[in-house]
Parts: sequence; structure tokens; C-alpha cells
Amino acid sequence: MANVSQPLPIRILGTGEHIPSTCIESHALDERWKKKSGWTFKHSGIERRYYASPDETTSLMGARAARSALATAGMEAHEIDCIVSACSVMEQAIPCTGVLIQRHLGLGESGIPAFDINATCLSFIAALDLLGVAIAAGRYRRVLVVSSEIASAGLREDDAETTMLFGDGAAAVILGRATGVDGSEILGTHFETFSVGAGLCQVKSGGTRIRPRTQMDEFLRGACFDMQGRATYRMAAQRLPIFLDRLFERANVALKDFACIVPHQASAKALDHLQATLQLPKDLLVRVLAKRGNQMAASIPVTLHHAITMGRVQRGDMMALVGSGAGLSFGGAVLKY
Amino acid sequence: MANVSQPLPIRILGTGEHIPSTCIESHALDERWKKKSGWTFKHSGIERRYYASPDETTSLMGARAARSALATAGMEAHEIDCIVSACSVMEQAIPCTGVLIQRHLGLGESGIPAFDINATCLSFIAALDLLGVAIAAGRYRRVLVVSSEIASAGLREDDAETTMLFGDGAAAVILGRATGVDGSEILGTHFETFSVGAGLCQVKSGGTRIRPRTQMDEFLRGACFDMQGRATYRMAAQRLPIFLDRLFERANVALKDFACIVPHQASAKALDHLQATLQLPKDLLVRVLAKRGNQMAASIPVTLHHAITMGRVQRGDMMALVGSGAGLSFGGAVLKY
Repeated sequence: MANVSQPLPIRILGTGEHIPSTCIESHALDERWKKKSGWTFKHSGIERRYYASPDETTSLMGARAARSALATAGMEAHEIDCIVSACSVMEQAIPCTGVLIQRHLGLGESGIPAFDINATCLSFIAALDLLGVAIAAGRYRRVLVVSSEIASAGLREDDAETTMLFGDGAAAVILGRATGVDGSEILGTHFETFSVGAGLCQVKSGGTRIRPRTQMDEFLRGACFDMQGRATYRMAAQRLPIFLDRLFERANVALKDFACIVPHQASAKALDHLQATLQLPKDLLVRVLAKRGNQMAASIPVTLHHAITMGRVQRGDMMALVGSGAGLSFGGAVLKY
Repeated sequence: MANVSQPLPIRILGTGEHIPSTCIESHALDERWKKKSGWTFKHSGIERRYYASPDETTSLMGARAARSALATAGMEAHEIDCIVSACSVMEQAIPCTGVLIQRHLGLGESGIPAFDINATCLSFIAALDLLGVAIAAGRYRRVLVVSSEIASAGLREDDAETTMLFGDGAAAVILGRATGVDGSEILGTHFETFSVGAGLCQVKSGGTRIRPRTQMDEFLRGACFDMQGRATYRMAAQRLPIFLDRLFERANVALKDFACIVPHQASAKALDHLQATLQLPKDLLVRVLAKRGNQMAASIPVTLHHAITMGRVQRGDMMALVGSGAGLSFGGAVLKY
């Protein structure tokens, strides 16, 4: 593979977010765990996170974020020609979540292709990469990418370490072909997966391996996050600098070129480490962690949405989306917005 | 979108299959259901299917099929530069199945990107489409696509209509860039999704919507296939001819050009309908249904593997992969092998 990528003429046409209806303040978790006021925030850097209510399904939240992104782009749903769900966890085993999002958008008779891309917390970047190439090749014109997550479904109330960290949420991004004069581009993308770390962050149930009908106890135990937080952080921290060097080399950019960096909001510690590793000025890293928690695959597009709506990135500016996630995987994309 | 696709210089470098260890003959099912000998075969057109044993996980079967495909291609695992799991149902909720396949291939320290593409039974064609474009664009050189399914995890012993139909299995395909002189190409691909049919074929549990810890009864009910076989068949039959016309138009080919057609092995009735719709000579459609059952997303690459190993398609020949699946979705790809 060439070390330098060919830029792709891709433009972000619109972004949107759906915030789930139930706000969980960290001080409410302090009370739940009988801790001093401020304990949860002190240990997580998170003030609040949101949980989906029972009627807010993964696909419903995704469709609401999509409608918001369509409004920003000034488009109708039927003008989309591909729908990609980019979530870590599906809504149900069959059919794929993209189909369910299509249905919520009132596109059930449209024939618009709908499928899922799953690279756990990096699913959005993986979808941006593959659909960016597909749009550049003329395969699609306007692609809706949706990341919607209900992390709260996998949280045990008494597991403070994990529960303090995660929140639910959804974001959507509409990708289209850049005109050439608008200057928008994907300058480079890069992914690395190290499955020696596959056991560090898991939800073991929910698939074909552990069967609820015959292995109920094991299934229930495996239905929640099983995280070795410290080991994950250590492995991610160790490999991140090399990964970032390769990403920036492929995109042929230097750190000083960026208006902002949109990271996965894994944890406060992970964000601080990224800032220290890259020796970033304080303002370069976009953070929504304190108000959202770790929203798994939704984190990166939610943060992107905030970067755009808060004016942290302007048309023509360079930005990078980066993150590490269960796998253990690293992913990144460098864009001219 | 242009009606005629740009051909992509993509070549199938190798294919492989893993057959699960437990063979379930249809006459054994006759006995289970207290039917006359031959009843199951008569109603399904299936003589036998295979079930994974408890130690044959989705990723293990996928990795075994991958090793066989690598041997055919004369390649080592580390020569792959991207691993795509193209299954309907994951092995576990987190991480994605591609990561677990990477681990079984001894590539845990390799950094080779690994992720999942899920378009239910059409996942293999969706992966072929997206990774074909990515290889043509120089993003990857040699991509391993694996479809591995354990349908038996979602079968109720007493549900004859569904149980007679499905089998487990895995297949793998290695895709690479055609040299230009070898003549291999993807001539066109096409997808359509109609989520008005999303309720016709479901496994409702296994995701974020139905929670095992609080909705156990509903979860157990939803853990098996929920199929409206007749309605699915009717809707698929109604829309298939239009879909095929569009696919062949995009690929700029006519039926007479094909050495064979590799269909999803949904059911004997679906295969007969396809044959009648296209008015195909008896030999054009490759069938493995009688010896494998419907293996969900593994069906198309398993059938492709058989078409190649049984000499039904030769280098330079034209073939089409086509199918319909839960969604309701249609997918197809026209290749010069």
C-alpha cells in the first residue's frame, strides 16, 4: 500500500444528533452508590449522561438524528441513496439495523439500500472510509451514516466503574460528493486491529456463542460490559502514537494543520492521554464527554456534530477523527471540512 | 446514478468452505416430528444440513474456511491486508466478529484492520461490493471476506417449518486486484431494501431492544426465527424480476452471457421461482441447498465455492451472484471470474 493516500472528493453535507430522554446526573449515581457528592464526576470527568427510554429504540434514535442531519443539509429523506447503520450493538439479531432505520424514515417502499458496518466504537470512521471510497467511485451520491447506541442496556447498576462511563445517544452524518471547488476532501484514513486485546473489552452474550435457551446463567452474566479498563487503557496508550504517525503520514499532514481533532470520547483519562501524546494546545481536542459520557460508536459523530455546530471547524478547515475501541482497534480519518 | 456501472478490476483469488461437524439428515427430522419417512425432504428439498458443535464458534468456522481459501490462493494469512466478517448474526455483541476471526488466524499482533459488514443474508455481496470498490481505489490489496453462520442457534426443535430449512456453515473468499490481462472484473452490483417487509423475517432478540435481564420471557420468545415464509416468498417473488432487470442493466449484460448463476439458497421454492422467472436452462443455477440447507449469509459464498471447485465457472466466464434476504433486501453482483 502506498504510504500516502489519494484524497477523496467527499463533503459532509449535514450532521444531526438525538439526545435520549432520560438525563442521569452524576450526583444521582453518587447517591446510588452511597458515595460522597462529587465522587462519580471526580472518577469519570462526566457530569451527566442520557439513557434511552423503553420506546426510544436504537433505530428510532438513529432516525431522529438522521432527520436532523437531513434538515441541516436541506434535503428530503428520499434524496438519500444509501443508508448505513454504523453501531457497535444491533437493535435485534435479524434484520440489520440499517433496515430498521430506513423504516423509521418512512422509506419502506423506497428500495434505498440499507445495511450495517460494525467496527465497534470506530464504526463511524469505518463507514466514512468505505462509503467515502464508494461515493468517489460514483457508486452512491448521498449516503446517510447513522451511529446510534444504547449502552445502558449493558450496564449493571452496581458496577460503578463501567456505569459511570457510558451513556446512550445517536448521531447522523450525510456524506456527498464534493464539487471540486468547495475544497472538501478526505485526505486519508487508517485502521489497525490487534485482536490480542479482544478479551479486554467485551459483551460476550447477544450472539451465536452463548445460548440463552440452554446457558441462561452464563448468558445473563455475559449480557453486560466486561471491561478491563486499566489493561485496555495501557494497550491503547502504548500503540496510539505509532498509529497516529501512520495516519498523519498517509494523509500527508502535520498536527499544526488541524483546526480541531474529534476523538472518540472513551474516557477522561484516554482524552488526557491523547492530548499529552500529541502535545496538543488545550483547545484542539473537541470534548463532549462531560455532558454525554462514552456513547460507543455514537461518540465520534456526536463530537463531530458538536465541533461543527459550535464553530470549532469551518468550511475549508482540516480536522481529524481518531479513536480506539474494543478489538482492540484504532481508526482515524483526516478531512478537509 | 448512471445506469451502467464502471467495471472494477477485481479477481477472486481463492475460496474455501468449512462444513460443521454434525450432520442432520432429513430422515432424522422426520422421526423427530413423527412424520412419514421423506416428509422433511418433500417439503424442503433438503436432504441434510450441518450443525456446529458447541466448540465450533462462528469465528472458528470462519477462520477454518479462511485457511482453506488462503491455501487455494497460495497465500499466507499475514499477506491479507483487511479482514471482513460478512455474517447475519454476530458471535457476541462486542467486539465485532471480524476481530474474533483475526484472532483465530493467529494475526492478533498484525494490526490488519478487521470489521463487519451486515446486510443479513446478502452480507457477502454487500462486502464484495464495498471492498471491491476499496481495492480498485488502492485502499487494500488482498481482502479476506468471511461469512459464517450458526442458524441452528435460532431454531426451535418443534418448529418444523423453519428448522427443516436452515443449516450452519462458513465460507471465505479472498479478493484481490485484477492485473488487467487476467480479465477478471466486477461488472456491476445492485442493492434494494424494502423495510415494509422488515417484520416478515426476524430474530427479535440479541440486541438492545429486548432486554434479557428485565424481559426474560419476551427475550426467549424472540431468540428464535420468526418467519412468515409465505408472505416473504410472495413479496420477494413480486419484486425480484424488476430487481434483476436493474442489476443486469447496470452490469450491461444479458442472461445468455452467464456460465452460471450463484443464488442465495433461501429455499427450494425460491430457487424454482428464480429459475422460472429468468426462464433459465436447468443447469445455469448452482444449487447446494439439498446438501447444506439455507446457511443465511454463508449460502452465497458456499455456493460460489462449489461453482468454482465443481468447474461450473472457468476463468474468464461471466457469473452473477444474486439473492433476497431479511429486510426485505435484494442484492446482486455480476462478475467475470
